[in-house]
Amino acid sequence: MPTKEEDFGEWYNETVDKAKLCDKRYPIKGMNVWTPYGWKIMSQIDSFLRREMEATDHDEVCFPLLIPETEFKKEKDHIKGFDEEVYWVTHAGLNPLDVRLVVRPTSETAMYPMFSLWIRSHQDLPLKVFQIVNTFRYETKQTRAFMRVREIHFFESHTCHADREDAERQVAQDVEIVDAVCHDLCLPYSLLIRTDWDKFPGAFYTVGIDTVMPNGRTLQIGSAHYYSTNFSKPYDITYEKEGGEHEFVHQTTLGMTERLLGAVVGVHADDLGLILPPAIAPLETVIIPIFKKDNQEKVMDVCRQVAAALKAAGIRSKLDDSDGRPGAKFFDWEVKGVPLRLEIGGKDIENNVATFARRDNGEKGTVELDSMVPGVRMILQAISANMLEKAKAKQQSFIHEMEDMGAESIPEGQIVKIGWCGNPECGHKFEDKYDIKILGTPYHPENWTGKCVCCGKEGCKPAYAARTL
Amino acid sequence: MPTKEEDFGEWYNETVDKAKLCDKRYPIKGMNVWTPYGWKIMSQIDSFLRREMEATDHDEVCFPLLIPETEFKKEKDHIKGFDEEVYWVTHAGLNPLDVRLVVRPTSETAMYPMFSLWIRSHQDLPLKVFQIVNTFRYETKQTRAFMRVREIHFFESHTCHADREDAERQVAQDVEIVDAVCHDLCLPYSLLIRTDWDKFPGAFYTVGIDTVMPNGRTLQIGSAHYYSTNFSKPYDITYEKEGGEHEFVHQTTLGMTERLLGAVVGVHADDLGLILPPAIAPLETVIIPIFKKDNQEKVMDVCRQVAAALKAAGIRSKLDDSDGRPGAKFFDWEVKGVPLRLEIGGKDIENNVATFARRDNGEKGTVELDSMVPGVRMILQAISANMLEKAKAKQQSFIHEMEDMGAESIPEGQIVKIGWCGNPECGHKFEDKYDIKILGTPYHPENWTGKCVCCGKEGCKPAYAARTL
Repeated sequence: MPTKEEDFGEWYNETVDKAKLCDKRYPIKGMNVWTPYGWKIMSQIDSFLRREMEATDHDEVCFPLLIPETEFKKEKDHIKGFDEEVYWVTHAGLNPLDVRLVVRPTSETAMYPMFSLWIRSHQDLPLKVFQIVNTFRYETKQTRAFMRVREIHFFESHTCHADREDAERQVAQDVEIVDAVCHDLCLPYSLLIRTDWDKFPGAFYTVGIDTVMPNGRTLQIGSAHYYSTNFSKPYDITYEKEGGEHEFVHQTTLGMTERLLGAVVGVHADDLGLILPPAIAPLETVIIPIFKKDNQEKVMDVCRQVAAALKAAGIRSKLDDSDGRPGAKFFDWEVKGVPLRLEIGGKDIENNVATFARRDNGEKGTVELDSMVPGVRMILQAISANMLEKAKAKQQSFIHEMEDMGAESIPEGQIVKIGWCGNPECGHKFEDKYDIKILGTPYHPENWTGKCVCCGKEGCKPAYAARTL
Repeated sequence: MPTKEEDFGEWYNETVDKAKLCDKRYPIKGMNVWTPYGWKIMSQIDSFLRREMEATDHDEVCFPLLIPETEFKKEKDHIKGFDEEVYWVTHAGLNPLDVRLVVRPTSETAMYPMFSLWIRSHQDLPLKVFQIVNTFRYETKQTRAFMRVREIHFFESHTCHADREDAERQVAQDVEIVDAVCHDLCLPYSLLIRTDWDKFPGAFYTVGIDTVMPNGRTLQIGSAHYYSTNFSKPYDITYEKEGGEHEFVHQTTLGMTERLLGAVVGVHADDLGLILPPAIAPLETVIIPIFKKDNQEKVMDVCRQVAAALKAAGIRSKLDDSDGRPGAKFFDWEVKGVPLRLEIGGKDIENNVATFARRDNGEKGTVELDSMVPGVRMILQAISANMLEKAKAKQQSFIHEMEDMGAESIPEGQIVKIGWCGNPECGHKFEDKYDIKILGTPYHPENWTGKCVCCGKEGCKPAYAARTL
């Protein structure tokens, strides 16, 4: 098996397989089976999204999977963007359908005809809903588990507002939601307003949420969009103001997918296997008893006590009392990415400690049996902090400033920060010369100006460019 | 609006609409939108299913929605049963697919090719998994929210076992799972082994789980199946025994759907609106302040204290401090089915009590402010117990014993208990004469014998027959 650096793609695929996060042998390419372990992690990520939605007054709903072609085609840019990548239901039973049905690639066109019925007056605003469902896109590129699949586990929130100002406040709130979830996942990310030629079909603007893989390629893990009235006009979503006039609502969406899990694998795993952020690890600690014939009872006793104490404190843990040698157990749980291993043997008990081994950095040490719960909590916090810091430093290391287009090429694995005047022509020239993509301009303004990398104009704001995974 | 007795169908539809459990205006008939309130209740029901699955060592998985036609057609009875009611995906993007894809109506044919890969030896058994997903059936009959829809919120567990004995132990465990969940829903039910001509396509036998609507028609809310090796043979799911021989696995499934919610509405609601079993009510109690100008502050203060105390105790409750008169609030929360209303006014506070009103029977009384939490808990328990008892008595009242086929007809709304020799010919004759369906024979044997309703043979076991919703 190649290392993470030698061949990211192959390393990634094997890491996913070894940890049994999904089964790719399902007879449709790009539609994978969620195994119990993978699904547990994804469900935990979902629970963080639900937590944030509840805290920000979004209601959970569930809209139908199938969308009539007639509804789907109402917004022109949107259908142009999805025309070549949707699945069509054309028959029911033995008969052709009168109106073909799209298998949702995203739910704007399912939701907005209903929003048009739901919203009457300013008192119905803001409307804030979300759902966690699967979406479907006919990928023609090489598929990759969690990152590029044809059935996609998908979170989407949709909001309607009285005006642009309130809608953009929502985008700002979305950014905080993303921050909270990425923090749980120990994932550094950037927020970049996409170029006009790369925004979501139908959006007024798109804020891309990107993280960086170990090979320096970026991975979009989500996006927030301000739609303005681009959808509310064709779907006729209006509200009556206090004065009686009718206005179109301003809309936003936030979307994130199972790529969050793919990003966790790509960013954190190493050549031994997964390294899971404690917040999403199905098991935060595993306890391995180390005994000889003469002290088995005693060791098992202490292990059981420790397991019970951790469990009572709400720390997800397991005593691995299966047959098999400790070394083999270490290996198995490393592959699965359990953040913290506790070993308890005769000597440990004499010293009133458990030996611990951190999965993130291999560090070993001891924690006192009498203060197991606070001790384990502290180590788990240290693991989370270290994982995030390490990933941030790594992400930063890929970024290089670029002043002009004098260089022949931009090396594979480099993310470049450029000055850009904002003119699409300059943008296209740059992208074409280096076969690279402008990811966008910072959502949070940076205190930086420079010359446009293409036309040389002074005092330009920064943009970032990279090759995407 | 007609009463529950006058016109069950119309009463049901209006009750669902008034409580805003779903929105039926989505532009595809039978594919409804889950609104926040309906989805909250359904999610709570799902959580009970997950609780039972965890307690019985089933792992949660998620299989793809789409199934290649080639896999779908491997089991002959199964495809015959579903041929006329599946949706077909035939195109992706602008191109026709080489192999058409079925939108899952249930997941046997998605899962079993994978089970064939997953199971190698007796050590892999039993395999026990479940998923909660949406399934799709092209209903040609009149649709009805939660009860007969085309996109169905669906729970399905699938298990593989070494032999029939172990598989039938699983069916027995399934029955306990059903019992636990129905208990939470205050739903009485019967377990009847379906006739051979009414079992699930591909099953060896089917245990139907039925409840009874107020019009005496039965509603199947789920089913457990023993498949024997009917699927493991065409899908080649074998295991190696300790001795080295290879055997086909014996399989079972348990399925339940959003009909659980439909049944709760049908069984418990009254002409005012929903009556929710406390276990699934998004709000178990609602607190309504009753104040005049001069005591508003004081009343609101006490209300807030009560709300905080209930919340801290984990009782789902809400202080309705919205504008509006108490009477209007009473009405709104009655429509929504909140099990317990607490009213707190100046006099109540003087007496150190809150006035309560039970949604299930309208009973009013007081509970002392000093023992709010245990008081409310006790009332909620009493509500659950009463709802179940009342529903049981009602269900029982529809059942009549029938000795022979002398009667001209069986009145609408009657469930009949008959002796049946088991001969399909007798069964068909009976069904045809009375335009009624034999639901099956008791899964838990009854200490009862009688003459066959048709051929008159003595000493026959009982069967139940009814008209279904």
